[in-house]
Amino acid sequence: MSEQGITVSKSEDFSEWYSQVLSKAGLVDLRYNVQGFVVHKPWLMRIIKAIYRFFEEELEKTGHEPVLFPLVIPEENFEKEKEHVEGFKPEVFWVTQAGDEKLERRLALRPTSETAFYYMYSYWIQSWRDLPLKLYQSVSVYRNEKNTRPLIRGREFLWIEAHDAFATHEEALNQIREDMENSRKVIWEKLGIPFLFLRRPPWDKFSGAEDTYAADTIMPDGRVLQISSTHDLGQRFAKAFNVTFLDKDGKRKYVWQTCYGPGIWRITAALIAIHGDDKGLVLPMNVAPIQVVIVPIYYKESDKERVLEKCRKLEAMIREAGYRVYLDAREEYTPGWKFNDWELKGVPVRLEVGVREVETGTVTVFRRDLRVKEKVADSELISHIRKLENDILEELKRRAKEFFESRIVTATRREEVEEALRSGKMVKMPFCGREECADDLKEATDGGKVRGTEIDFKEGDYGRCAWCGAPARLIVYVAKSY
Amino acid sequence: MSEQGITVSKSEDFSEWYSQVLSKAGLVDLRYNVQGFVVHKPWLMRIIKAIYRFFEEELEKTGHEPVLFPLVIPEENFEKEKEHVEGFKPEVFWVTQAGDEKLERRLALRPTSETAFYYMYSYWIQSWRDLPLKLYQSVSVYRNEKNTRPLIRGREFLWIEAHDAFATHEEALNQIREDMENSRKVIWEKLGIPFLFLRRPPWDKFSGAEDTYAADTIMPDGRVLQISSTHDLGQRFAKAFNVTFLDKDGKRKYVWQTCYGPGIWRITAALIAIHGDDKGLVLPMNVAPIQVVIVPIYYKESDKERVLEKCRKLEAMIREAGYRVYLDAREEYTPGWKFNDWELKGVPVRLEVGVREVETGTVTVFRRDLRVKEKVADSELISHIRKLENDILEELKRRAKEFFESRIVTATRREEVEEALRSGKMVKMPFCGREECADDLKEATDGGKVRGTEIDFKEGDYGRCAWCGAPARLIVYVAKSY
Repeated sequence: MSEQGITVSKSEDFSEWYSQVLSKAGLVDLRYNVQGFVVHKPWLMRIIKAIYRFFEEELEKTGHEPVLFPLVIPEENFEKEKEHVEGFKPEVFWVTQAGDEKLERRLALRPTSETAFYYMYSYWIQSWRDLPLKLYQSVSVYRNEKNTRPLIRGREFLWIEAHDAFATHEEALNQIREDMENSRKVIWEKLGIPFLFLRRPPWDKFSGAEDTYAADTIMPDGRVLQISSTHDLGQRFAKAFNVTFLDKDGKRKYVWQTCYGPGIWRITAALIAIHGDDKGLVLPMNVAPIQVVIVPIYYKESDKERVLEKCRKLEAMIREAGYRVYLDAREEYTPGWKFNDWELKGVPVRLEVGVREVETGTVTVFRRDLRVKEKVADSELISHIRKLENDILEELKRRAKEFFESRIVTATRREEVEEALRSGKMVKMPFCGREECADDLKEATDGGKVRGTEIDFKEGDYGRCAWCGAPARLIVYVAKSY
Repeated sequence: MSEQGITVSKSEDFSEWYSQVLSKAGLVDLRYNVQGFVVHKPWLMRIIKAIYRFFEEELEKTGHEPVLFPLVIPEENFEKEKEHVEGFKPEVFWVTQAGDEKLERRLALRPTSETAFYYMYSYWIQSWRDLPLKLYQSVSVYRNEKNTRPLIRGREFLWIEAHDAFATHEEALNQIREDMENSRKVIWEKLGIPFLFLRRPPWDKFSGAEDTYAADTIMPDGRVLQISSTHDLGQRFAKAFNVTFLDKDGKRKYVWQTCYGPGIWRITAALIAIHGDDKGLVLPMNVAPIQVVIVPIYYKESDKERVLEKCRKLEAMIREAGYRVYLDAREEYTPGWKFNDWELKGVPVRLEVGVREVETGTVTVFRRDLRVKEKVADSELISHIRKLENDILEELKRRAKEFFESRIVTATRREEVEEALRSGKMVKMPFCGREECADDLKEATDGGKVRGTEIDFKEGDYGRCAWCGAPARLIVYVAKSY
């Protein structure tokens, strides 16, 4: 049994727990023979597809339309925005040959697609009538990261990138809020992952952006993980790619742009890490590939048929009600093995059906998140499952929020900052705003980073910087990060 | 208006018609600055997503599960199956650099993923319990084609690849039939594209396969287009990648494999080409991004509000009924311009609402496929739309089948073959079975190719080869192709 289940505690050794869950729950396989590129197995792909669907639905509600741009970006496009190329070029994969021939110019595998999209935007945007333009694509991107970790940092990873163009900066800034709301609706409301939406300090913004805003969640080991980000690109790319429009006033103007990237990989990592427990994955019903699993239990061959008959009826009834249900009638595994396996995979609801259930017209319902069982009358089953759908998500949100809040502490003195970071906390503190101070803090604390200010934060007089003691203009969040 | 609409007739100049539809209906943009790589615009992406969904649903019904494998395949994987590498290597794109560094070994952009999947199958398949293994992925693939044509032949194109492994050859052969049925259910039943499912001659099979079966449709210019294919891989890859299982009899055996590739790009091309008319796209409702468009018509400002009010009510009612509806209330365009634009884009149903419709409690319903209008009472509208959903698809199927059948002729003599191919027909003819004869036919007819035999065809005595006069063992289909 030890080989089947997770052998470490999530709270004691998160890193090992995470690796074991990814492998034992059948999520990723790391044995593919290119370093940093992983195989996404079916259970993971089904979860990821559900998450994509949530984001795409929300994006489309706010006027975004799907597109698909080429994977490859010519080197000359990259060169157009100076900061952007400096930021990304060191980690770009280059296609240089086709068959036996050397290509005339190198082609980058998209590390992000600003320089592909905006090349076309210069054709597509001519008049104020063409604005706003709001497009997104759901794709893999490629970066030659030195250290990789599945679903957290990869050389190939899945995301969405939404690229929007507006007539005014004000509309672009409103888009930043809409993006934040998009993150909240999916990441928090549907997936139960709490986050802070922070405006990054100037030295930590996206290469080529005027301003970067990002959602940080806190992983079980206390390190924060950036799970989505949105950038106020100002008119930098518009000028680099000559994206202009004839405004109503007859004047030709550069557009204002934003880009938004929900990190599908990392959101999935956070989902796994934050809700999971020592038995494995714990999934909300809305993303669970199987929402309800039915396990028949019988010890005598003579009981088999009546138990299975009831199971099949339940299966049909539950499917009819619109749920993803699986009757696990495999004979080569014991009920106990199945219990463990489906718990490992995070199936939210398990129904146990034995002779007693047949005779009493009931089902034993096991709830994965609380790991409790209760008897439910057959006639109540569907309404019970409907209720669980909401209850389970609410329970996961409650727990996640409790954990998240417990991991944020306030500090006003250097020792408090050090102590908090040492014990895996995120620190809210007055800050002088100087990059040198942030660098010093990072070095002294072995990685504590200034993550930024809350989006509506106003600069002011906030006493003394908790780190250097200089006058504080900001309240920032500081944490170690992935 | 000529700039807005298609300026050539599909029957007179299909090639130009196709280019204009792709561009004017807002499907692809060819101006991206890498040759052979196209931008998929929103209208196309929505159609493609619907087609993907149909295939994925059908694949999952027959036990396939989704996965995602890395884009890059190390050169050594390629080398393992000799025919496969010979077939694909000349057109592979190679990643050779990351940042400033040269990679230790070249990585191929997947031209197809046998050599990625089966590398992992050697880990995943150990016992008969692991079989059958049926996995698919929905991805872009990359081939450095010399001549490209959007949605027909690209350096980057969209498809699905399903890779299945079985304990016996018999099961693998059954899978070929299941794949054919999958193609029939989606390509014919849902999309109304007729095709012949043919067993390719030995010299035209997939590199690395024992046998190739493929669906050929006929494009409006009479050339056939292969839109899906499935391959009996035998045990070739199993031996190359050492994919074995311990069978129930205690013996270790190689698996039998198949792979199936619905060509999403080409199926979309066929959908556009076969159903379209001189006004533009004609879409069945099941893939139309907008199924019903409502165009308000008023000439006096005083009529505007009551017309729009009715439009909004209809919009809400139609959306409520589950349809994708769009109320085109844009004031910068005339009703006539809107009519043309939505016809160009292939919206199946247009509702025209003017003062008369308001006063009589009716709607004028325009059906894109037949280009006819009729008055429908408001109270009948939803049931009318429901009926159209089926009627339109049936009409498209009827027409497509009629065209398809009219393009297949029987020939028994060389002159008949020549004449048929010259006039854009597919020829059904007795054939000797020799590759040299097929080569001669191809050269003499400027491209007529032996496409293969029907799947259930049995060899026998079929008189004389229509081309060379030698004894005929086969009845084959011959056509010029894309």
